Amino acid sequence: MPDSKSKTKLPGEAYSSKIRARFWIVGDATSEVEGGSEGYVGIGRIELLENIERLGSMSQAAKAMGMSYKKAWKLVQDLNGMYAEPLVIKEQGGKSGGGTQLTERGKVVILEFRTLEKELTLFLEAQSSKII
Amino acid sequence: MPDSKSKTKLPGEAYSSKIRARFWIVGDATSEVEGGSEGYVGIGRIELLENIERLGSMSQAAKAMGMSYKKAWKLVQDLNGMYAEPLVIKEQGGKSGGGTQLTERGKVVILEFRTLEKELTLFLEAQSSKII
Repeated sequence: MPDSKSKTKLPGEAYSSKIRARFWIVGDATSEVEGGSEGYVGIGRIELLENIERLGSMSQAAKAMGMSYKKAWKLVQDLNGMYAEPLVIKEQGGKSGGGTQLTERGKVVILEFRTLEKELTLFLEAQSSKII
Repeated sequence: MPDSKSKTKLPGEAYSSKIRARFWIVGDATSEVEGGSEGYVGIGRIELLENIERLGSMSQAAKAMGMSYKKAWKLVQDLNGMYAEPLVIKEQGGKSGGGTQLTERGKVVILEFRTLEKELTLFLEAQSSKII
């Protein structure tokens, strides 16, 4: 049997030597703010938002992630539905031909996620030392 | 459409109001201790170990979790393969008819997981306050 077959596929991300984890930020609806629907932001959706910010285009962001435009659009609609304000807006027409941009709220969501990720890494590194 | 259909199924466990998470402790092999194979311990496997400890029987533990004996046995073999010492042992024959018991190592793994879970809950509760 080849080596690649006998290896276990480990879940989550290796945030520390002995602890792997995954986390999701839940939207306004869960915290009972008006105008949001239940949903969550995990690493995959954050990467999609980051690609949209970097590329200024939904189709290019989808392509960069090997994802269909339809799936990316569905994820963005879910994300926009989570909060009272949208995270992503489409620019209609104009000289640029209508790109896709992150709103300030969208940028804050990315920052919150990546900041929490850094704090979690420090926390899990400290906790790893307690595990035999 | 019924309400249950329109609700998003959220991933992970609600460890705090705004952050859901899941974590896995990885075995000795990953930390390069001799005699262990790559693997992980997550909430499902911990619950199986806890049921074995409580019921003293693999078949009753499997039944309590709505899991086949075959699946439970496979998970226990994976867990035992992760560490230099087994976490679970089968008692052969005797008056009790051969139950299944946790070793001291198995009890330590449960304690490590549940202690980390408590610490993670406190950490995520504190982090939740930073999220808008």
